[in-house]
Amino acid sequence: MVDIATRVYNHKWKIDPIVRSLIDTDFYKLLMCQSVFRNRPTTSVTFSLINRSTRIRLAELIDEGELREQLDHARSLTLARGESTWLRGNTFYGKRQMFRPDFMAFLEGLRLPAYHLEKHDGQYLLTFEGPWPQVMLWEIPALAILMELRSRAVLRDMGRFELQVLYARAMTRLWEKIEALRGIGDLRIADFGTRRRHSFLWQDWAVQAMIEGLGERFTGTSNCLIAMRRDIEAIGTNAHELPMVYAALAEGDDRLRRAPYDVLADWHEEHDGNLRIILPDTYGTPGFLEHAPDWLAGWTGIRIDSGDPAEGAETAIRWWQSRGEDPRQKLVIFSDGLDVDKIIELHGRFHGRVKVSFGWGTLLTNDFRGLVAGDGLAPFSLVCKAVAADGRPTVKLSDNPAKATGPADEIARYRRVFDVQAQVAQPVTV
Amino acid sequence: MVDIATRVYNHKWKIDPIVRSLIDTDFYKLLMCQSVFRNRPTTSVTFSLINRSTRIRLAELIDEGELREQLDHARSLTLARGESTWLRGNTFYGKRQMFRPDFMAFLEGLRLPAYHLEKHDGQYLLTFEGPWPQVMLWEIPALAILMELRSRAVLRDMGRFELQVLYARAMTRLWEKIEALRGIGDLRIADFGTRRRHSFLWQDWAVQAMIEGLGERFTGTSNCLIAMRRDIEAIGTNAHELPMVYAALAEGDDRLRRAPYDVLADWHEEHDGNLRIILPDTYGTPGFLEHAPDWLAGWTGIRIDSGDPAEGAETAIRWWQSRGEDPRQKLVIFSDGLDVDKIIELHGRFHGRVKVSFGWGTLLTNDFRGLVAGDGLAPFSLVCKAVAADGRPTVKLSDNPAKATGPADEIARYRRVFDVQAQVAQPVTV
Repeated sequence: MVDIATRVYNHKWKIDPIVRSLIDTDFYKLLMCQSVFRNRPTTSVTFSLINRSTRIRLAELIDEGELREQLDHARSLTLARGESTWLRGNTFYGKRQMFRPDFMAFLEGLRLPAYHLEKHDGQYLLTFEGPWPQVMLWEIPALAILMELRSRAVLRDMGRFELQVLYARAMTRLWEKIEALRGIGDLRIADFGTRRRHSFLWQDWAVQAMIEGLGERFTGTSNCLIAMRRDIEAIGTNAHELPMVYAALAEGDDRLRRAPYDVLADWHEEHDGNLRIILPDTYGTPGFLEHAPDWLAGWTGIRIDSGDPAEGAETAIRWWQSRGEDPRQKLVIFSDGLDVDKIIELHGRFHGRVKVSFGWGTLLTNDFRGLVAGDGLAPFSLVCKAVAADGRPTVKLSDNPAKATGPADEIARYRRVFDVQAQVAQPVTV
Repeated sequence: MVDIATRVYNHKWKIDPIVRSLIDTDFYKLLMCQSVFRNRPTTSVTFSLINRSTRIRLAELIDEGELREQLDHARSLTLARGESTWLRGNTFYGKRQMFRPDFMAFLEGLRLPAYHLEKHDGQYLLTFEGPWPQVMLWEIPALAILMELRSRAVLRDMGRFELQVLYARAMTRLWEKIEALRGIGDLRIADFGTRRRHSFLWQDWAVQAMIEGLGERFTGTSNCLIAMRRDIEAIGTNAHELPMVYAALAEGDDRLRRAPYDVLADWHEEHDGNLRIILPDTYGTPGFLEHAPDWLAGWTGIRIDSGDPAEGAETAIRWWQSRGEDPRQKLVIFSDGLDVDKIIELHGRFHGRVKVSFGWGTLLTNDFRGLVAGDGLAPFSLVCKAVAADGRPTVKLSDNPAKATGPADEIARYRRVFDVQAQVAQPVTV
């Protein structure tokens, strides 16, 4: 039987919206947003979309009108009552009322601010400028919209069964990954794939497959909307944008040098337990750890997000030992460019030595490599970063020189201030 | 939105019926039924289900109560008005009113007759006894019910995503077969897979995938219900049961020897064009062709259903040449144990020499080999054959001694009467 009402209701959509909820975003964006709302509410920040894979000419693939419709739709969203209730009432990492009433009031009144869009050399220049707590919430929806519009563009001319088989192939591939991971008894793995997902529905499918296939070993998703709908844990801590903006705002080299620790001091005040995770690589992991205050060694763990991951974990283990901490009590979260083989290898090397956990991103939610002609659905490296704060440029170095961003002279200054030695370049694919 | 009425309606089903229509059967059963209804309406025939793959212990896999429910449901079916209209009004092979009014009246009044079911040694003994035009219509639904109950039994304990991935894998496999067949420009291929299909829905999916993937190269399906719903051609001619019953009824060796030609003489009167297809292997192809009357050489083509298919086609070509016919004007339909490699090989060898066509069966509609643990979904050799006519046993020899059926002494007599020489055994898997 055809459900006539559903059909008629569906006819009323002018577009098929990609982002349909303000909480279709990563949990850590909300955590960071609360921190920023408290500590730096008036800082003006510019976020900019950057396609590191210049061979993918997004402005030729994606119609500008469609892109504007999707961005405009995202701007029309407000926090739904049930979403607010879920954020206010949920227990995150065992803690209730993670979000303070003043922050919730801010979020309930929020709409995403204006965007600026133009085309240049086959790419879209998409920027968001305004108060940090508002513009920062554009990052994930902007990425998700671009990623999914690109998927739609590539899939547009395919037949109905061709499409079904495409998804059948992708499902089979993902399930085989999950079957391979079942072999690891004490695995702990979460979905970190919102930002570069193939589509919302595909991420939702991937999460459900992980729930059925991995059971307790699947610890949750970074996506708040999916966490709410599938009744699983929302996962996340903090990201590079905090030290990048704090650093940009710092006056002089001494304050610059202290900026990454100022971020974590603010964070320390607010959070404990599983939220006390160090992200050490913004300006080079070895220097960050060497100069870190002792209280940081007491934190729960570390997230390894660039450079050679095994080397990063070994560096962290040596650091904890040098500070009199027992690495076996510490959590190491690997979250950079993971796929099954790497997960199995890293788990094999580090389980028993530290508590090992994985944040699996693009190759969980967007592995369509080789599934269409010309490999048109292969994931690519699209990011949306804070590029300026109160008119001053931001800089990120990371543990991979290929990921460094910012003006060349500022990169040089940061490398000097943070005492960054020679780094080994890693290919950046996703 | 949930369609409440649909949900409530679905609750009313006591079972999930496997066969939901009297025309969920092969088109040639209806063609043969009309011939039998005209020529041998009162002959009493016994059909019997035979599982040649004794390692599959069906009576242990399938609950007897469920089997009876499904068989009883099939007995409750009558021809629906729209089905009758389709049969009366459709054009088959370019001809209208293929079915005569008296036969349609018979079919509109028909219900499937009683069945007899018992268990023995891990197998079901399922027999149908009664007037030939009625009991013959049990063959396809009985096979489809047993095949699908076996699929359901194997799938019963699988999770939701595990199931989705199972079908994703099967879809991928089938689509890759279709992609391989796309390489053959002048391919002509039909679905002959009703009797040993994985399930009705799966056959329906396979047909739709063939429509999209092969376009005009896909010539139709043997399944009347799917042909009607998908608006494609219903395909079929005649089968072994006609000569088997005619032969069983023949008095003495001379009439036995003539019986296979009597069948085709009756058929000749009724049909022309694409329905004049010789099925020569019931009692050995070489002898059948050697002793065939000249008018048979004028028929449209031949169906190769046992033995080495290339050898069978070469035999047919030599025979046509010996009778002064041009093989390039003749149709050769391969229909035994086909899969993509064999199809490509046979097409390569015979296209240009004859008109080549394929009736693709079990490995189109039931290729789940290797997709579950223990290979529990692999197709197996289940048949439902006329075993007796007016109390006399039937015999089938075919071109493969492994497929011979009937009492040993009668097999010996038939081999003598039909002058069958040594045959090469071919493995029977599907």
